[in-house]
Amino acid sequence: MREFSVRPEIMEFDPYKPGLTIEQIQAEYGLETVIKLASNENPLGTSPVVQKTIERNAARAFRYPENHTPRLVEEISRQVGVPEECVLVGNGSDEIIDMLFRMKAHPGRDNVVCYEHCFSMYRMCAKLAGVEYREVPRGKDFALPLDKMAEAADENTAMVIVTSPDNPTGQVAHVEDLAVLAGVLPKDCLLVVDEAYVDFTWPPESYTPVQAWDKFENLVVLRTFSKAYGLAGLRVGYGILPPALMARLKNARIPFTVNLLAEEAAIAALRDETFYNETLQLVMSGREYFADELKRLGCRVWPTQANFVMFQPPKNAMDVFQALLERGIIVRPLKSFGLPDCIRVNVGTKQENETFIKVIGELLRG
Amino acid sequence: MREFSVRPEIMEFDPYKPGLTIEQIQAEYGLETVIKLASNENPLGTSPVVQKTIERNAARAFRYPENHTPRLVEEISRQVGVPEECVLVGNGSDEIIDMLFRMKAHPGRDNVVCYEHCFSMYRMCAKLAGVEYREVPRGKDFALPLDKMAEAADENTAMVIVTSPDNPTGQVAHVEDLAVLAGVLPKDCLLVVDEAYVDFTWPPESYTPVQAWDKFENLVVLRTFSKAYGLAGLRVGYGILPPALMARLKNARIPFTVNLLAEEAAIAALRDETFYNETLQLVMSGREYFADELKRLGCRVWPTQANFVMFQPPKNAMDVFQALLERGIIVRPLKSFGLPDCIRVNVGTKQENETFIKVIGELLRG
Repeated sequence: MREFSVRPEIMEFDPYKPGLTIEQIQAEYGLETVIKLASNENPLGTSPVVQKTIERNAARAFRYPENHTPRLVEEISRQVGVPEECVLVGNGSDEIIDMLFRMKAHPGRDNVVCYEHCFSMYRMCAKLAGVEYREVPRGKDFALPLDKMAEAADENTAMVIVTSPDNPTGQVAHVEDLAVLAGVLPKDCLLVVDEAYVDFTWPPESYTPVQAWDKFENLVVLRTFSKAYGLAGLRVGYGILPPALMARLKNARIPFTVNLLAEEAAIAALRDETFYNETLQLVMSGREYFADELKRLGCRVWPTQANFVMFQPPKNAMDVFQALLERGIIVRPLKSFGLPDCIRVNVGTKQENETFIKVIGELLRG
Repeated sequence: MREFSVRPEIMEFDPYKPGLTIEQIQAEYGLETVIKLASNENPLGTSPVVQKTIERNAARAFRYPENHTPRLVEEISRQVGVPEECVLVGNGSDEIIDMLFRMKAHPGRDNVVCYEHCFSMYRMCAKLAGVEYREVPRGKDFALPLDKMAEAADENTAMVIVTSPDNPTGQVAHVEDLAVLAGVLPKDCLLVVDEAYVDFTWPPESYTPVQAWDKFENLVVLRTFSKAYGLAGLRVGYGILPPALMARLKNARIPFTVNLLAEEAAIAALRDETFYNETLQLVMSGREYFADELKRLGCRVWPTQANFVMFQPPKNAMDVFQALLERGIIVRPLKSFGLPDCIRVNVGTKQENETFIKVIGELLRG
């Protein structure tokens, strides 16, 4: 079998190891029902309004989508209160992250500053783009180290990336602290705030800098429809960018990356306030319930502003993960985040939450 | 407004100029119906079986898709007759093209060989990847210049790309000629055959090298669900690659790029032989009809093995395009392909085809 050379950076990637699907877990452990609390998906599923929109548009699947999804851009602009020329929709916010790395950063010269135990996409995109990846240590109790990020940035730093609320710790940055960080960064450096979980913060105006987007000249905000809007399977997210940068990125992007049904579904999801509010209510009460109950069971629990809770069980985390799996509950062990003692569990329905607490209670007491 | 530096290559891209949508054309010219024969979409629309599949899966939109779409890979493997470890599914075949450029080619060192008047994605991806783009001239009557491509390839050529059938000329390469080309390429160079339109060739075994994929060690074949399978809006295509290269690319790809509904729809489309065969029948008779009628109207018409026809009208092509547009028929003027005298029209339904011939007949005779 002939081998072909690839870019040296590509050789450094390890094979992807997929988790088992719900069907595979059912088969392997002989389970009738499996509860998935591992991927931060929406506990209410897909909004009925969105489902109807998808059904109504199925016949249009043979048409190419409109490039740059202008109708969805218009709806986002209206709802978020930013001009259309700042809004870039992607095939998941992952596409926007990838575009920023490959277009903004100069390979072999620039660097990007993140913090330890963060979302793996940033490191992956840095390697793909041939850009240096810098990771600064966390503060006490995984506090987001904004000061240290500012110190680590130099004139070749293309971006400083803060996930807020943070995955997997649930930590959050305050808007005043983000403003300070934005103000001290070198002049060509972007402050990228990945707000995948921002819908679940309370009160949101204390955390998102979007309301003051025009005061920040170097701010990029990333958002997704995968969590609060229940569209993880449709791959749609967006960025809010400085307009001049946005125009450059738009010119150079691969055309038609966003699925036609995804655009329609996202527009419907943005207009479906009922489903959105029900989701927030469920998540906010569920995470309180998890925090109280897990503490009661002797776990260390970190405060969270997201739709999940990070905790350290009093027994080996991988053993707890495996025992839960065998009982039909999937959670996320955090070894791959460099946190081998911790587990992340997302809020499910009330019944799923209670089942999870019951089962982990049996495991931890037993 | 603060400007931010981007990679120098990104500065070279021109802004994208979108065409008008069907709705915008209706409004602008006061038309009730508009016939779109410009994007090589499926004249039968979306298969009813696929529509039902989409409707049935709408409720699953909140779940993340499985990375690398293993169920669709399995179905492609079975239908095409290649091992699963050769099949890579992408968010459109565009994603696979982009992956090949950014992962296989070494920026600043490698080059890629194409021919003039070809699909614009190749040049775009080369620029994005920082790879030299070489374009060789066409033969007489736009024949695919495989010999010249072989001559232009050197030890730094990462890929030679042949679209067959070719967009927009309709030209096709024979499997024996592709075998010769594959055999003479430098040892680290891939032969990429973009088979977006291969479903419409007759007989297919004379044109696609896929049946002999294991004889070619350096072959990459690209296919799409956007044309014969009627799924342009869902963005799904695939590549058939040498297994060792495939494994490298899989490791380094952005996860979850393929929409969950797209995977389900593509599986259903592959199994829906009725719709596929009806599409082929309609396209094959429609392109004959177009060729005959356009010749009768004094156009120069090139032979085609695709779902479209390229022709040179006896009047100014841009004027003909504009006059058709004002009468509610969208075709594709080929100025952006470097063919300002030519127009591409895709086969529509029987009635759409007849309307097009009637209207262009009035224009050319008038």
